Amino acid sequence: MRIPILKLQNYLLISIQIDLDDQTAIQFQEDLLNKIYKSGATGVVIDLTSVDIIDSFIAKVLGDVVTMSDLMGARVVLTGIQPAVAMTLIELGIHMQDVQTALDLEQGLVKLRQELEG
Amino acid sequence: MRIPILKLQNYLLISIQIDLDDQTAIQFQEDLLNKIYKSGATGVVIDLTSVDIIDSFIAKVLGDVVTMSDLMGARVVLTGIQPAVAMTLIELGIHMQDVQTALDLEQGLVKLRQELEG
Repeated sequence: MRIPILKLQNYLLISIQIDLDDQTAIQFQEDLLNKIYKSGATGVVIDLTSVDIIDSFIAKVLGDVVTMSDLMGARVVLTGIQPAVAMTLIELGIHMQDVQTALDLEQGLVKLRQELEG
Repeated sequence: MRIPILKLQNYLLISIQIDLDDQTAIQFQEDLLNKIYKSGATGVVIDLTSVDIIDSFIAKVLGDVVTMSDLMGARVVLTGIQPAVAMTLIELGIHMQDVQTALDLEQGLVKLRQELEG
């Protein structure tokens, strides 16, 4: 199955509200990069509020998505990271030091606007 | 499967990017009404850009969703209605005269803001 990607002005919004299996995560990565390319989006907010837990593969894919989006010129803000998810990301040494985070979708958008529109 | 519902300020955003089967449509109806109740949202944008075609059951559910949301105090704007979808809705006599529509998610939000915030 696919995770819907919403376009709002120059930004893409994604709210992950299902358990991510490996196939879905890879498909999401591909869909998001394609959508950044096609839409010319400059920012992406990925909301993880409904994600309770992630395994090492999903953590890796998420880290990659952030780096790849950045390479393509779109800044990523992760929002709603729960404690268990934060712990997994850090324990696995996923490269997240440059990633912006925010409490929720709304704050994520505010952060993107501040950063990209000054 | 479930269709993600994003909350942005007082509004809920939904982008339907899969083929709606009966079960998913009913689940969506239930999820949306619950989310309106819990979040106190005053407006809803349902983006149908990726929906090519609908059958009579889905058309009926969509019509019902709009009426029910209205009853609960949330104004609905449908966006990205494709020709075939428009034809199905009209041919089936789905009660849509009071429904706001717009070209895309962005315009839908603008319409909601104009209407609800004056």
